[in-house]
Amino acid sequence: MAAARKRRARPSRTSADQALAERVGHGMYARDRAARMLGIQLDAIAPGVARMSMTVTRRMLNGHAICHGGIIFTLADTAFAYACNARNRLSVALRCDISFCRPARLGEVLTATAEERQLAGRTGVYDITVANAAGEDVALFRGTSYGTSGTVV
Amino acid sequence: MAAARKRRARPSRTSADQALAERVGHGMYARDRAARMLGIQLDAIAPGVARMSMTVTRRMLNGHAICHGGIIFTLADTAFAYACNARNRLSVALRCDISFCRPARLGEVLTATAEERQLAGRTGVYDITVANAAGEDVALFRGTSYGTSGTVV
Amino acid sequence: MAAARKRRARPSRTSADQALAERVGHGMYARDRAARMLGIQLDAIAPGVARMSMTVTRRMLNGHAICHGGIIFTLADTAFAYACNARNRLSVALRCDISFCRPARLGEVLTATAEERQLAGRTGVYDITVANAAGEDVALFRGTSYGTSGTVV
Amino acid sequence: MAAARKRRARPSRTSADQALAERVGHGMYARDRAARMLGIQLDAIAPGVARMSMTVTRRMLNGHAICHGGIIFTLADTAFAYACNARNRLSVALRCDISFCRPARLGEVLTATAEERQLAGRTGVYDITVANAAGEDVALFRGTSYGTSGTVV
Repeated sequence: MAAARKRRARPSRTSADQALAERVGHGMYARDRAARMLGIQLDAIAPGVARMSMTVTRRMLNGHAICHGGIIFTLADTAFAYACNARNRLSVALRCDISFCRPARLGEVLTATAEERQLAGRTGVYDITVANAAGEDVALFRGTSYGTSGTVV
Repeated sequence: MAAARKRRARPSRTSADQALAERVGHGMYARDRAARMLGIQLDAIAPGVARMSMTVTRRMLNGHAICHGGIIFTLADTAFAYACNARNRLSVALRCDISFCRPARLGEVLTATAEERQLAGRTGVYDITVANAAGEDVALFRGTSYGTSGTVV
Repeated sequence: MAAARKRRARPSRTSADQALAERVGHGMYARDRAARMLGIQLDAIAPGVARMSMTVTRRMLNGHAICHGGIIFTLADTAFAYACNARNRLSVALRCDISFCRPARLGEVLTATAEERQLAGRTGVYDITVANAAGEDVALFRGTSYGTSGTVV
Repeated sequence: MAAARKRRARPSRTSADQALAERVGHGMYARDRAARMLGIQLDAIAPGVARMSMTVTRRMLNGHAICHGGIIFTLADTAFAYACNARNRLSVALRCDISFCRPARLGEVLTATAEERQLAGRTGVYDITVANAAGEDVALFRGTSYGTSGTVV
């Protein structure tokens, strides 16, 4: 199945592209109150990719005493947003799908890794995997982005 | 197209079913820290249905200065959870899909209305519509639930 | 919940719009070999809506002796295509989600009803319900369309 | 991002598991009229994985003269079915999501590769990639399966 991974287009990243991605990431993060409210951190960003992490706190628990699925989605959606905006084309989420694999509990550190699967014209497809510290999948998220004519920074 | 709506199974609701749904709703809400953190209110609950609302506050804004999609998802997902648990079968979200229709801005009141489209064996399908005060669709959400052998209250 | 339905934008349809929709529908159908191979019929078309039907034949059965989910998807996807192209803007499917509710068996007549939930800029959201002759839901489909700059007829 | 792939559970496959998967695959295929109608071939099967291929023929074209999205879905859905049944637990598709990346044209050979992302209790998540002969992604499909108490062979 390794071949399936190689098929993914992975544009060569110049240092200028990388510098722009970091500038976009820091610019978005400075204004991103929702991410900061939840303690989401921007761990890494590059053209089409992003990695963000978050610790499950008490106020994130739902009525079943596990992390609210909406909060897990928010972590994934945030990584998606940073990945699809990293080329400085102002992009919005059009549609997202999430599968919940296992519960996340109080105190767990969750990491969302976003990678671009496709980018053609205005629309892109991104896969985001949310994993716990043991490396187990907590959620699998796939997002469709739509690029506007604006820029982020 | 009205016929399409009539086809939806709509089980007759006895007052006992309704009383149970309300007891489940209030029980879940009392423990639901995430919903309360976001100021989500439980407006109505019945077997297979729920309506919840939330005001967009400053800390819900993302890096594009509109309500974070994850927060909109969380509102919808919360209404989904209350609807699919309302018969007192402890149920979890298996998979959710959300389409974002228009941005929600600071101060807007959003309402999520969840209704059951299907319930067969352990799994159910629920449609949740998130609308603004003008009645315009902000997001369309569809969730698949999985019923465990436990109860909520 | 009736209010939720009223919120759907339902543009007024002039007879010119309707005539164009019918011209688009017949033009597409004349070239649509896949639809004809499966015996899919175009029962009704209007701006943003379409209704199509199909009888489950022996060659549509899968390894479990029920109608292949891909064939049910194809019926729904076809109704989606006709609905989103009916305003004569050449449109393609970007992303689709389908929930399978109950099996369809040999000889059953399935009807797919497509309606527009949202249309903004280049993208639209359509709900397609596939029902059997008893009016029971067989599948619930939601599609995102992308409008190109071309026309259908 | 390689780490993300390693996290996938990949159960060790004994030769008995592999022999069973092949027996299931051949048993399903012998009864799978829909797959055979479309010329879909079973290229490989193992516990949780399957690879199937198909050539786009004239009767698979839609009203836009490209391969009907439903037919591409059917190829992916077939690979999904074989992968999730390969452990001989009779399993059905609960819900599927597909993103269309690029059109497939007359004469193209498409290959669908299915792999298990998660299997817990009765439900599983599978990723299916449909690629053309150039190795470009044509569609990205994610399916949720539900395991019944029956067996396939």
